[in-house]
Amino acid sequence: MAGVFAALEVIRMMKSDGYQPKRSIFVNAYAGEEMSRFGMCCIGSRAIVGRIHQQDLKDARNMAGESIFDVLSHDGFEPERFNRDFSTKPRVHASLELHIEQNRILQDKGISVGIVTGICAPTNLRCEIHGIQSHAGGTSMEDRRDAFMASAEIALALEHLAKASDSEYITGTVGAMKLDPGAANVIPGQANFSIDIRSISAQDKDDLVEALQGKIDEITRNRGVTYQLEQLNNDTPYICSPRLRELLHESAKELELPVLDMISGAYHDSLMLGDITDAAMIFIPCKDGISHDRKESIDMDDLAKGTDLLAATLRRLSEE
Amino acid sequence: MAGVFAALEVIRMMKSDGYQPKRSIFVNAYAGEEMSRFGMCCIGSRAIVGRIHQQDLKDARNMAGESIFDVLSHDGFEPERFNRDFSTKPRVHASLELHIEQNRILQDKGISVGIVTGICAPTNLRCEIHGIQSHAGGTSMEDRRDAFMASAEIALALEHLAKASDSEYITGTVGAMKLDPGAANVIPGQANFSIDIRSISAQDKDDLVEALQGKIDEITRNRGVTYQLEQLNNDTPYICSPRLRELLHESAKELELPVLDMISGAYHDSLMLGDITDAAMIFIPCKDGISHDRKESIDMDDLAKGTDLLAATLRRLSEE
Repeated sequence: MAGVFAALEVIRMMKSDGYQPKRSIFVNAYAGEEMSRFGMCCIGSRAIVGRIHQQDLKDARNMAGESIFDVLSHDGFEPERFNRDFSTKPRVHASLELHIEQNRILQDKGISVGIVTGICAPTNLRCEIHGIQSHAGGTSMEDRRDAFMASAEIALALEHLAKASDSEYITGTVGAMKLDPGAANVIPGQANFSIDIRSISAQDKDDLVEALQGKIDEITRNRGVTYQLEQLNNDTPYICSPRLRELLHESAKELELPVLDMISGAYHDSLMLGDITDAAMIFIPCKDGISHDRKESIDMDDLAKGTDLLAATLRRLSEE
Repeated sequence: MAGVFAALEVIRMMKSDGYQPKRSIFVNAYAGEEMSRFGMCCIGSRAIVGRIHQQDLKDARNMAGESIFDVLSHDGFEPERFNRDFSTKPRVHASLELHIEQNRILQDKGISVGIVTGICAPTNLRCEIHGIQSHAGGTSMEDRRDAFMASAEIALALEHLAKASDSEYITGTVGAMKLDPGAANVIPGQANFSIDIRSISAQDKDDLVEALQGKIDEITRNRGVTYQLEQLNNDTPYICSPRLRELLHESAKELELPVLDMISGAYHDSLMLGDITDAAMIFIPCKDGISHDRKESIDMDDLAKGTDLLAATLRRLSEE
């Protein structure tokens, strides 16, 4: 929506005096930014920058076991035609993205616009614990091989490691957990859960994954259960283009907009665009930091300020 | 199935010389022993002994929110007619039950028949944790109100308390866990999980529940989340009838069957029957202790030995 507002702003500028754009401005709507469905994030922007090849479309699957390739074929697309040569990168002069903050920092500080300094990138893992399913009453505490208790211990170890890290910004999350058979009176024989690790530093993430793996080894050995750990993706964090950030600050000054420099804990399509061009982002507040929820909402005044900054900076870029 | 075998054995005995039964023998198949569907165990035997009233059929609900009353009505039964006066208990001379052990003690010791000394009873609770749903990347470790991490800590506290208890036999299990929204990149705002506590001592169970509640208070307070704890049932353990156990031992001696006295960690319909009559149980091994699973299996020779003991003891009881 912000993109549409910005485009309208640019059209308005084009009609005004003295505007001499030297470059075309595109409004992009990227497909599949979230990883919820296929365990792969930013599918659209990944495809643009050449990080996805046809085989990836066949490998990434949803909970029902269908691949992106299957689903696209079923819906009448022709994914077999997606077979680009990525040796030549698309030529893009710069990329700007306006997004809600997904946290409450701007709201708490009463500032309407944030300029993103860097975008944390996720490392996503899927962990499967294999214990022994048995009866909750018939099996003494000593005889158990409880897949869930092992998972609970691993989740808390992840939390502890993320909190103890001296990284500038790092998070560890278990958002999805499936127990098998999942009945109140049966000790789970199997547990499947998601691990999401994000940081502004690729090295810090790698260190955390390594430390976590050590803890998983130890916990599963002590509990007599086994595990499989599958890495779904490991994206490199992106430090936003210093040139674009400078332009954003200049435009904000011109518009007399107070701004805040901030890290993005969430990933965004801009992280992918950073592969092929200068990329930067503008944040606006979202109510109480809530996102990915029906309660997600923004203030129109904040949106207007973010859009003003986006349009003013696009104008500078289009005149370069 | 064992009941059918036993009934056939009794018929065979009736045809033999000198058998003078003074009492009728009924083969009972109890409905709804497991609590998986409606959060209430032993529905059939509870109804027989008067522990269920019509209102309970309306209160106990499945995951879809349907009550037992709803489901019975939908399937053509007439639960509104279930309105017995329980002031007079049914008159039953004695109750014997043959069941698989649901553990591997008999298998490990190479003994085919167990005589149950007492039946642990479950206390079942449903715990709901209310945190704040937020973005896995956008929310720093310090700002989180993670409903799942609180649940993981509570589950491990339950495990620790059960292990540390000096009860003769006590277990604590989390078998079901549901996270909301349950996506890899979202910090769970809500977690619902089952708590199953079993012991041979009602007091030990009450002590464990009280200690657990103290831990839940502490954990949720420290994490800034809230909780609701609902007790679904709290059944009293049953010490099997000493008279019947003596009869079982005498019959086993007569049959030259080696037997093992043992506790039942799992509950059984006999626990309910204990309300109105002398009740006892016979156990036979199940392969590797696995039950409630497709891999559940028994040895026909063990079944034959258990049935022999059941039939011989029924014969003694029917002649009393």
